[in-house]
Amino acid sequence: MNSAPALPGQLEPGTLRLVPLGGLGEVGRNMTVFELNGKLLIVDCGVLFPEEHQPGVDLILPDFSPIRERLDQVLAVVLTHGHEDHIGAVPYLLRLRDDIPLIGSGLTLALVEAKLKEHGISPMTLEVSEGRREQLGPFGLEFIAVNHSIPDALAVAIRSEAGIVLHTGDFKMDQLPLDDRITDLRAFARLGEEGVSLFMPDSTNADVPGFTPTERTIGPVLENVIAKAPRRVIVASFSSHVHRVQQVLDAAQANGRKVCFMGRSMVRNMTIAADLGYLKVPEGVLVEVKKAMTLPDDKVVFMSTGSQGEPMAVLARMANLDHQIEIGRGDTVILASSLIPGNENAVYRVINGLAKLGATVIHKGNAQVHVSGHAASGELLYCYNIVKPKNVLPIHGEYRHLTSNQALAIETGISEEHTFVVENGTVLDMKLGEVRISGQLELGHVYVDGSTVGEITEADLKDRRILAEEGFISIFVAIDPQTGKTIVGPEIQARGFAEDESVFEDVIPQIVRALHDAAENGTRDTQAFSQVVRRTVGRWVNTQHRRRPMIVPVVIEA
Amino acid sequence: MNSAPALPGQLEPGTLRLVPLGGLGEVGRNMTVFELNGKLLIVDCGVLFPEEHQPGVDLILPDFSPIRERLDQVLAVVLTHGHEDHIGAVPYLLRLRDDIPLIGSGLTLALVEAKLKEHGISPMTLEVSEGRREQLGPFGLEFIAVNHSIPDALAVAIRSEAGIVLHTGDFKMDQLPLDDRITDLRAFARLGEEGVSLFMPDSTNADVPGFTPTERTIGPVLENVIAKAPRRVIVASFSSHVHRVQQVLDAAQANGRKVCFMGRSMVRNMTIAADLGYLKVPEGVLVEVKKAMTLPDDKVVFMSTGSQGEPMAVLARMANLDHQIEIGRGDTVILASSLIPGNENAVYRVINGLAKLGATVIHKGNAQVHVSGHAASGELLYCYNIVKPKNVLPIHGEYRHLTSNQALAIETGISEEHTFVVENGTVLDMKLGEVRISGQLELGHVYVDGSTVGEITEADLKDRRILAEEGFISIFVAIDPQTGKTIVGPEIQARGFAEDESVFEDVIPQIVRALHDAAENGTRDTQAFSQVVRRTVGRWVNTQHRRRPMIVPVVIEA
Repeated sequence: MNSAPALPGQLEPGTLRLVPLGGLGEVGRNMTVFELNGKLLIVDCGVLFPEEHQPGVDLILPDFSPIRERLDQVLAVVLTHGHEDHIGAVPYLLRLRDDIPLIGSGLTLALVEAKLKEHGISPMTLEVSEGRREQLGPFGLEFIAVNHSIPDALAVAIRSEAGIVLHTGDFKMDQLPLDDRITDLRAFARLGEEGVSLFMPDSTNADVPGFTPTERTIGPVLENVIAKAPRRVIVASFSSHVHRVQQVLDAAQANGRKVCFMGRSMVRNMTIAADLGYLKVPEGVLVEVKKAMTLPDDKVVFMSTGSQGEPMAVLARMANLDHQIEIGRGDTVILASSLIPGNENAVYRVINGLAKLGATVIHKGNAQVHVSGHAASGELLYCYNIVKPKNVLPIHGEYRHLTSNQALAIETGISEEHTFVVENGTVLDMKLGEVRISGQLELGHVYVDGSTVGEITEADLKDRRILAEEGFISIFVAIDPQTGKTIVGPEIQARGFAEDESVFEDVIPQIVRALHDAAENGTRDTQAFSQVVRRTVGRWVNTQHRRRPMIVPVVIEA
Repeated sequence: MNSAPALPGQLEPGTLRLVPLGGLGEVGRNMTVFELNGKLLIVDCGVLFPEEHQPGVDLILPDFSPIRERLDQVLAVVLTHGHEDHIGAVPYLLRLRDDIPLIGSGLTLALVEAKLKEHGISPMTLEVSEGRREQLGPFGLEFIAVNHSIPDALAVAIRSEAGIVLHTGDFKMDQLPLDDRITDLRAFARLGEEGVSLFMPDSTNADVPGFTPTERTIGPVLENVIAKAPRRVIVASFSSHVHRVQQVLDAAQANGRKVCFMGRSMVRNMTIAADLGYLKVPEGVLVEVKKAMTLPDDKVVFMSTGSQGEPMAVLARMANLDHQIEIGRGDTVILASSLIPGNENAVYRVINGLAKLGATVIHKGNAQVHVSGHAASGELLYCYNIVKPKNVLPIHGEYRHLTSNQALAIETGISEEHTFVVENGTVLDMKLGEVRISGQLELGHVYVDGSTVGEITEADLKDRRILAEEGFISIFVAIDPQTGKTIVGPEIQARGFAEDESVFEDVIPQIVRALHDAAENGTRDTQAFSQVVRRTVGRWVNTQHRRRPMIVPVVIEA
């Protein structure tokens, strides 16, 4: 488990302490803890998805250890929007104390409540919307509309005697958003006039030149593709992208097609979004799968998950002909989504599979079927110039994103010493608008694997990587420790190394002899005999096969 | 090992048979076998690099089994250019028969000979250049200049009584190449006039709209970046990209900087290229590392490998401060290369590491420091219209690339039934200019791992993937088969599963009881006892941990 230090106590009154527990140096598990006068406020509590060097891991959580002993001092968790990298770790935090109040917009809370229900938790919540102000102990909160790739996202300003912090959450500045809910630059400007001591802007697209196009550009492309499609249309996108789905519904409607939602999370999220009025479903356009399967091919659009090539999602199963919808010649598949780095091979495998079945595949590489949900550098420059913050802490991104965002801040005239590119666990203290770094906590990755949380360690992952690359050889042998004579075994098992176990006939007599020789030389301890086996097999496999599988010797006294 | 069928014998005289052994449905291990009147001709013999679902594999070779028994009939291997995906498997082929003649251009042969030397093979070669014609048995070969991301690339026309085949190799149509050696469209036109029965064009960029920019656009960008760089400059690119390196040399020279080559393959290839005159090294610009380390920071450019984030290459080691060149604030790193799909996370890890050390990182995402080596769709359209082939077999690419190339052919007026999107192992027969598919050989992936070739099977890789995801639990127990009584053990070992082995205290008595119960119920066979152990531990781990590690029981009679 984790042995990270707790948040240092005894903070001077009037000093606001800020510790990012996740989201810096990575894209995901966003979480920041604010402390003032003995009270804690948390903004976001998300998960990170594992990379290829973390095999078998389901999710990665922020390391809660700095606040683990102080959960009773947490006044609330503010959730800026409903994406997994902002809300996904809430169930794990609430397992530790289930009455921490959750604050967020209507859609955000609906999504987190649906998630918590699966964990058997019914949370305390406070629904807020843009313009709302709320005093929580020493923290004065003000919520500000921002737009993003999910509706109802909020930025939050945190006022206190230490100064004003403006945390954007994830955002972009679409000037013609589908729901007309623009990022409230008037509020940014007003806060700027008042004086923002610390600005915490989303860095995800800080290294992208120019401006993110408006979501409205997608609709006509979708409509055109659907109009020309001779047979079925399958659109894959993120299951929380309400506006993208809205455009699919509208484009289908315009072409006299019905829409069928596929995939558990798509169905669940769109039901929530429709119930709450975020998704406007045209009368009669939605159909169930059963009905959809009976419609003529040119009268239906399937809206599915799996745009990242996830092997168990609807789209990958279609590409493998492992789904009730059998893709064939003349079908059109649209991947209306980004391609998250690391997923390229999986996505291309799906595209190749679909192409092989005869489908036409439309994706952002060959048509304008996706725009990002994050502000590009041009938009961030607007923000810096409108807010004119005293200090800047770029958040949400890998190091390259954070430094790009810092560079933008500096270009607008903010001096470098007032920009902070820091890591998870860096402790920043703010007093009377002055920010300084006051420490660094050593935080870990908390891995969720199956039903376990934090049991899998870095050592386990290292073992898994070795096992993946090289497989293992286990050797069991029971010996008489006095003579080193083999009583039972050696029994050799190998996996991922070579199928034909006859290769081990060579090494078995070597093991027997080495154990005997070791005993002759005075070895008596089973640990030492194990080392002898490990060395003997290791030398053999290296010489004979030039490989380095994991070697697992078990020597016991018989 | 492989049990793929051999090339069917007894081909009708005058029929040209063509079997791609690699390169279709994948990017790599390009290899095509041609057969006519009992003689075989091979074009290219490359390797494929493994993806993440092939852990621990070093290289993937084409499956040679269809020609294994007929190597004495092979007249030659034509190598279109010197990239690994076209020449990398030559040593493995020549291990089977080391006097197969290799035909290629000067640079191609020099690179393959350097490689073969490491394998202790000294090949028979025939150096050719553009315009050269050569009769090999029934095959009339004509070599044609094409440009690509390595100098001296050749297309090959194969004339025979069956018709003319035009195989482009990898190519693009840079109209202003650095070495003024343009893709010879006059020759393509002349062959077109004569009548090309089968055109085999490179598909790699067939889904890229427009035209690949000229390599010359890179030079001014490099020169500008180097001119502005305050301290050291490190450029990473492919170690065979002679023209890219040429531009780095020229840009360094123009800015009064010396250049130092870093990385074994960079040094080796550039030495060959300079010796043969492909790389023009300005007088006095090259320095050795030792000398480079003594130069002022603003007087040196390091030209290195590692642009794909390879963990052992120079660049990744620099990013980890595991290299004699310690990257620091003010250093500039240029990744003058493509980003091969699947390498994104590795490359971004390197970029983040460099950014963290204070370096400015320039890459194709933020500057024009790379152009592709392959013809985009606009260029392919020119080819189709100039060659006007009767039949088209798109080669070199994943399925999505092959179908995009096919679509281009059809757009230029070639009827769909004369386009062939096929797989590795598809047998195509051509007679009097008519092409038909006559069969399909089942080919495998031949994995190189350490010193073994073809020993690692798909089953081993499946085991490795399970081990990576879940780790393993091995259980050793020696029993009295009559009573099921445990004599020695159960000894449990686990790796990649959970570090703390105390978790197994739970399951040990369950194993002992299950073995005893099985014996009571008449079990006597050790295999059956093993199954009992597997089931017991499997049920326990699934219930208690919701995981599915590999379970390796060893039950022996004591």
